[in-house]
Amino acid sequence: MAQIPEKYADILQTKSVAHIATIGPHGEPQSSPVWFGWDGEHVLFSLTKTRQKYHNLQRNPRIALSITDPKEILRYLEIRGRVVRVDEDPNLDFINSMAKKYLGLDKYPWHQPGEERVVIVVQPEHTTAQG
Amino acid sequence: MAQIPEKYADILQTKSVAHIATIGPHGEPQSSPVWFGWDGEHVLFSLTKTRQKYHNLQRNPRIALSITDPKEILRYLEIRGRVVRVDEDPNLDFINSMAKKYLGLDKYPWHQPGEERVVIVVQPEHTTAQG
Repeated sequence: MAQIPEKYADILQTKSVAHIATIGPHGEPQSSPVWFGWDGEHVLFSLTKTRQKYHNLQRNPRIALSITDPKEILRYLEIRGRVVRVDEDPNLDFINSMAKKYLGLDKYPWHQPGEERVVIVVQPEHTTAQG
Repeated sequence: MAQIPEKYADILQTKSVAHIATIGPHGEPQSSPVWFGWDGEHVLFSLTKTRQKYHNLQRNPRIALSITDPKEILRYLEIRGRVVRVDEDPNLDFINSMAKKYLGLDKYPWHQPGEERVVIVVQPEHTTAQG
């Protein structure tokens, strides 16, 4: 388990998106932005069970996330780690909290009936940073 | 070789950074932001030969990049592909062009004497996008 360097911990409080790197079905890297939360110990983000990233992480729990400081173009934090838990989000509490953070809305506006959402819980194991 | 979807080609003209996903020495995904250029066919970015990402790409040329639209929080383009060329940048022409794009400066201000810079040339093979 890695500590987040104090000098870069503020980046976890920004509204930047986190770009997640996962390993695809043919061993290839994949990258995409996600809304993220931080509970003081883990990075959290939401996926539907139909997303490619969800299948990637079921197959291979290793993940990296990079997050830039919205105010300083050269400053960023990378967290490498692994998915240690996948929580169901049946009442959409987590995705709604993300809509609050990123959109200022109480409810995530694009939920589709029948869509199953989960919370991906990432344990940091290593960090790199710059700036 | 993949075409960039016309609907998302404008994202390649923004000053967003590209977050690159590479495979590390132990098979783990890594992610970090880079300044990028687009020559109409390839994504280009600069690295020094001492950077971990350079060694990762020498070992495994597969890469993914995700780039968000700075004006629309939910819109992004992901390009997956591979490094097809690594060009030397002895006169710093490329990194200086990146300093122009991102900082508005004619010269990259942090070049260190003796530092060897290369231009990583990525051939898109697949794209995903959203928003």
